[in-house]
Amino acid sequence: MSAELTYAMIGGGIGANIGLVHRRAIALDGRARLVAGALSSTPERSAESAKELGLDPERSYGTYQELFELESNREDRVDFVSIVTPNDTHYPIAKMALQHGFHVVLDKPATHSSAQAQELCDLAESKGLVCCVTYNYTGYPMIRQARAMVRDGVLGNIRKVFLEYHQDWLATDLESQGHKQASWRVDPTKAGLGGALGDIGTHAENLISFVTGLSMESLYANLQAFVPGRTLDDDVSVMIRYTGGAHGILTASQVCIGESNGISLRVYGDQGGLVWYQDSANDLRVTKVGANPVLYTRSGPGLHRDAVVSSHTPPGHPEGYLEAFSNIYRGAIDRILSLGSGGERADLSRLAELIPGMDDGTQGVRFVEKCVESSQKNTQVNWA
Amino acid sequence: MSAELTYAMIGGGIGANIGLVHRRAIALDGRARLVAGALSSTPERSAESAKELGLDPERSYGTYQELFELESNREDRVDFVSIVTPNDTHYPIAKMALQHGFHVVLDKPATHSSAQAQELCDLAESKGLVCCVTYNYTGYPMIRQARAMVRDGVLGNIRKVFLEYHQDWLATDLESQGHKQASWRVDPTKAGLGGALGDIGTHAENLISFVTGLSMESLYANLQAFVPGRTLDDDVSVMIRYTGGAHGILTASQVCIGESNGISLRVYGDQGGLVWYQDSANDLRVTKVGANPVLYTRSGPGLHRDAVVSSHTPPGHPEGYLEAFSNIYRGAIDRILSLGSGGERADLSRLAELIPGMDDGTQGVRFVEKCVESSQKNTQVNWA
Amino acid sequence: MSAELTYAMIGGGIGANIGLVHRRAIALDGRARLVAGALSSTPERSAESAKELGLDPERSYGTYQELFELESNREDRVDFVSIVTPNDTHYPIAKMALQHGFHVVLDKPATHSSAQAQELCDLAESKGLVCCVTYNYTGYPMIRQARAMVRDGVLGNIRKVFLEYHQDWLATDLESQGHKQASWRVDPTKAGLGGALGDIGTHAENLISFVTGLSMESLYANLQAFVPGRTLDDDVSVMIRYTGGAHGILTASQVCIGESNGISLRVYGDQGGLVWYQDSANDLRVTKVGANPVLYTRSGPGLHRDAVVSSHTPPGHPEGYLEAFSNIYRGAIDRILSLGSGGERADLSRLAELIPGMDDGTQGVRFVEKCVESSQKNTQVNWA
Amino acid sequence: MSAELTYAMIGGGIGANIGLVHRRAIALDGRARLVAGALSSTPERSAESAKELGLDPERSYGTYQELFELESNREDRVDFVSIVTPNDTHYPIAKMALQHGFHVVLDKPATHSSAQAQELCDLAESKGLVCCVTYNYTGYPMIRQARAMVRDGVLGNIRKVFLEYHQDWLATDLESQGHKQASWRVDPTKAGLGGALGDIGTHAENLISFVTGLSMESLYANLQAFVPGRTLDDDVSVMIRYTGGAHGILTASQVCIGESNGISLRVYGDQGGLVWYQDSANDLRVTKVGANPVLYTRSGPGLHRDAVVSSHTPPGHPEGYLEAFSNIYRGAIDRILSLGSGGERADLSRLAELIPGMDDGTQGVRFVEKCVESSQKNTQVNWA
Repeated sequence: MSAELTYAMIGGGIGANIGLVHRRAIALDGRARLVAGALSSTPERSAESAKELGLDPERSYGTYQELFELESNREDRVDFVSIVTPNDTHYPIAKMALQHGFHVVLDKPATHSSAQAQELCDLAESKGLVCCVTYNYTGYPMIRQARAMVRDGVLGNIRKVFLEYHQDWLATDLESQGHKQASWRVDPTKAGLGGALGDIGTHAENLISFVTGLSMESLYANLQAFVPGRTLDDDVSVMIRYTGGAHGILTASQVCIGESNGISLRVYGDQGGLVWYQDSANDLRVTKVGANPVLYTRSGPGLHRDAVVSSHTPPGHPEGYLEAFSNIYRGAIDRILSLGSGGERADLSRLAELIPGMDDGTQGVRFVEKCVESSQKNTQVNWA
Repeated sequence: MSAELTYAMIGGGIGANIGLVHRRAIALDGRARLVAGALSSTPERSAESAKELGLDPERSYGTYQELFELESNREDRVDFVSIVTPNDTHYPIAKMALQHGFHVVLDKPATHSSAQAQELCDLAESKGLVCCVTYNYTGYPMIRQARAMVRDGVLGNIRKVFLEYHQDWLATDLESQGHKQASWRVDPTKAGLGGALGDIGTHAENLISFVTGLSMESLYANLQAFVPGRTLDDDVSVMIRYTGGAHGILTASQVCIGESNGISLRVYGDQGGLVWYQDSANDLRVTKVGANPVLYTRSGPGLHRDAVVSSHTPPGHPEGYLEAFSNIYRGAIDRILSLGSGGERADLSRLAELIPGMDDGTQGVRFVEKCVESSQKNTQVNWA
Repeated sequence: MSAELTYAMIGGGIGANIGLVHRRAIALDGRARLVAGALSSTPERSAESAKELGLDPERSYGTYQELFELESNREDRVDFVSIVTPNDTHYPIAKMALQHGFHVVLDKPATHSSAQAQELCDLAESKGLVCCVTYNYTGYPMIRQARAMVRDGVLGNIRKVFLEYHQDWLATDLESQGHKQASWRVDPTKAGLGGALGDIGTHAENLISFVTGLSMESLYANLQAFVPGRTLDDDVSVMIRYTGGAHGILTASQVCIGESNGISLRVYGDQGGLVWYQDSANDLRVTKVGANPVLYTRSGPGLHRDAVVSSHTPPGHPEGYLEAFSNIYRGAIDRILSLGSGGERADLSRLAELIPGMDDGTQGVRFVEKCVESSQKNTQVNWA
Repeated sequence: MSAELTYAMIGGGIGANIGLVHRRAIALDGRARLVAGALSSTPERSAESAKELGLDPERSYGTYQELFELESNREDRVDFVSIVTPNDTHYPIAKMALQHGFHVVLDKPATHSSAQAQELCDLAESKGLVCCVTYNYTGYPMIRQARAMVRDGVLGNIRKVFLEYHQDWLATDLESQGHKQASWRVDPTKAGLGGALGDIGTHAENLISFVTGLSMESLYANLQAFVPGRTLDDDVSVMIRYTGGAHGILTASQVCIGESNGISLRVYGDQGGLVWYQDSANDLRVTKVGANPVLYTRSGPGLHRDAVVSSHTPPGHPEGYLEAFSNIYRGAIDRILSLGSGGERADLSRLAELIPGMDDGTQGVRFVEKCVESSQKNTQVNWA
């Protein structure tokens, strides 16, 4: 499998699990090759990580600034950059990348403020560049099946949505024990306005948007910091009113002991309902009013094209998190290639159309801001 | 099995499913015998129902007033009355029953107003009578195991509680099709202030209280009436702040297509978490911080006495709704017997201690009132 | 609920769990009343049990012989007897009961030898008496739905059947610790030819027969006694060839640690397949060839009348073991009543038609004999 | 990620799903790069496939013979070959590969006869080459956890093993509709002695061996060809007696409608039991005698090193089939590297130690032969 594109990674050096996840998600389909990087926060550690990953030392950069400046002058400059640093650096890095003409794949939450996010959105737009935000859970084939069915009206008018994203890894104060991943996530200067809200609540908001296409009208949020000493939330519950009358419950928590990374989506309309759980990610249960529940399964009968093109293996051969994640990169790569060639590649374009963009990233940051505002005021706030 | 007590039923005649459920829940343990009734809303239908159930015609009464007056003069007067009529009649019937000295088992929600409920509470207290409210889901052995573990501190300080009670039978306007059970439930003059809120939201509130013992400090509720034409809610979501800092999410809905009668309870503390689903009612999953989840099973190893005494069959022989329901009556009967004899019967007293009382019933009605107030004002309201 | 019939129980005194289960299964529907008994193996303990159950001392008999002789002379003689003694006494008790003109409900395995069972079968037939064997698992509504669908050809020609009945309570030598229930089950003089084979393997065989109606042509069995010191099997595996070419796997074990009482049924034909697990007894998953799996649920849409009449509660209100068991007694009572009145009672007759009879009991004993023969010879044996 | 090794693929051209699976399983960890191939059965189609995969045309060979001859003369010759052709060609291809000094990764079943398999085994041994058979299901982290716990004695002496591998894709005669994958699998000249037996029964046999280490003493098998016109089995059931007294039930079927690719493993000893299902592959339920079931989860607490090193993502981020498959290649690559360098690489050697070798492959083919023999004779046959 010869890669069609090359990329650089910012962050994600040795010990940074999320970088490894991104690299594997890309590698799974073998369509882009890592050739450059500014992998860690110091030049020394960056070099060490680059060596471990087998990068050409010439293309292992000490800082992201250096990377963009030098790469942009190469004939074989990378096609895109994958940014997997802590939240506070997303904005300057992505901005510089776009300014130097690189396509961007950016981890969520996109930025610290929605103004920053909007700026990146506009910048990418004006430059004609792809700026994809890794709301990776939208890559699950059966989430895409859910989206297709909701949007095709199988459930009728949507009434109620439940989205849960419950973890437990921050149930104790790991941050006081030198746990690097925990430490920056509970630090407002690094993480931003939201704790669990930013880290996983944005995934939750995006999943609802992706599947239902509903527009928020107002919301009421309660943020809690259960672990003593925290200033950022480690648990958030939100009630959302959508245009058209639908109502949503979104809960994101990092203190639910016994839930490693439990995500569930349930959507109910006047004609039917559907439920999806990440721990049985290959199944989607759909019930039409008055009928028995039907189990749609990945690569099984009766699936929408969006689910079919997002699948890697035959039915019954379980796919998981990495396969879903890879679909984001597959779509981003398709989109980059289509821009390059001046037209969509017909057989792959559906993947490209489904990827989350910087507009989704901007909505996520705005969601954080609105939830924080509602919780502080203890009132419902309007979205617009 | 010779019954230890006799009872009369008010409501629950032919075609009223809930009356049959109560009778079966009582019959399962064979400790009380139905001997009298005012079973339907007209004397003619009451007589017909009584005949079907094999009651002595002399003790088949045309109205509840007649029943209480005539039964109270019999030497073999019934020991207690089971009231399973629509909500609007609970108060006058229960009041009259207590005034005539009968112990009462009352369906939920207890009354239309918390003032009425409190009055019944006081009346029962002053008369030394049992007034049990059939929050039947508290009768599940593994719910009682959950309660024991939470109260024994196994989960540490409680942080977060999720209680869902989702049905779908009112997802369409059955009331316009002459569906009797639907019709009164969507009629405020019959059902009271709450629709789904009163019908199942009160069960949900009580389950949280029963298991955790947490006191509500404030709540924010959104009530929705999704089916056109309804004035009462068919869907309600509530965020609750508890004394001590715990936070709760309670959702009750009758429009979640695909959920027949789905109840789940999840409780998370700083030392552990537990989850229970009615559709696997014989299991309780408990996870202590840093450890693997452990599956407690009904009649299995390591159970609290409260679960043991609430169980009917050996492990692996599934118990369900009726067995749970029967535990409420077992406890009520024990309590009545203990009052009669002037002392607790040692081996059964635990069942009697666990039954929901009129104070729980009062709290449920108050919960309805507070949620309606919060939803109308669209603000958080204080409990006290 | 005034009982329509009266019954006596043989065995099932204090401490005998199975007697309690039978009494509760009967009580649930309130159609038969226990009025007489020979409840334990000694007159003293029988009297004590009778007192505990509130029997009229006059109808508490010291022995079953006494019971049949005296009851048969009473004007208010019991309508039927429920026999819940250890296996070795089934034959003489049931024979005497039938000879005295009592209808019989008999625990499984019916007798020690198929010759005895056939004799009882013939005796009941010649006397025009009901002789029902409590293959209680056939009482589950969704097992009856499975039966109806298989027999209506929904799955096409049956190819493969899997029936598992796995327990763990005999994984250690409880018998050496004075455990009464274990002790007689591992004793060939009490239990008969089969250990797990007789105790639960007969349930397994009957479930296959009940659901599929397939006729055995030959079988190959391996019996194991894993716990040291046992002479009877505590684990058995059987491969069965059915007339018409279907193939079955039946496994019954009492040493599968972690399985309390796990029963599953899977049937596959050339047009579809179905799966049922006792631990989600209210569901039945059916897949037609080329289509998605559909979940049929108790009291849900699209059920066969056999499932409907076997159900006690609305959808989503879980039913379990006792409700299933009660359906056997409901059917037996219907059948007794229909005989008494000279005709079927139309609305209940389906329950009566579905109960296991002494012919099923005979087949079960024959199955034990054939499996023992196959295992001893270590060859396949023919059924006929 | 710069690849450490290069490989060639034989078979697996366009439209051959299994080749894609192997390539993705390798790509996931980015440690080997595809640089050569003889991808299809004709030189033309091979060239087309090679182009699609971006191979250097010079290293796209028309036949495997050509590949081995020319590659073996290159300085940059591939390190190993991955053989993913239909069964009948495994033997000649693998033999020639080994003779030319290439390490081999070979699809299962290894060969048509155990004599051929043994010859390959000896050849690899004598040449000092790796010859790994892709029993990929052994790559699941929780299967490796099961293995470690069984071998550490957590379950005590093993008594009973259940292994099921049930599919449904051959429930109809796809072969008559020109379905390429079906056609060769039902053709004895291509598939060998076994149909379902060879295709998936060998996986099943290997999973038992891998986890338990038990040695077969004798077996009794029934092979069925349910779909009219087939000469090879599409369904097989086997009872196995192991040295030491354990008993096993292995069933493999390709006609179980509703089961896409359902694999389950259950092992019971005198001290405990464990259960694993592929459709919840990240969980392993372990029950010690007298205790409650404990859920071990991938990347969760208390795991054996074998599970830890086999995991790609944090807890709660589901892994599936490809991740498991990749562990086989990771181990094979480690092993090849260790041979190259003259010693084990300490931190990776565990993966290398766990891979299935040609001895396992040989046992699998022998298992096919023994089952066919037993089924034809309709008797138990000895393993040795």
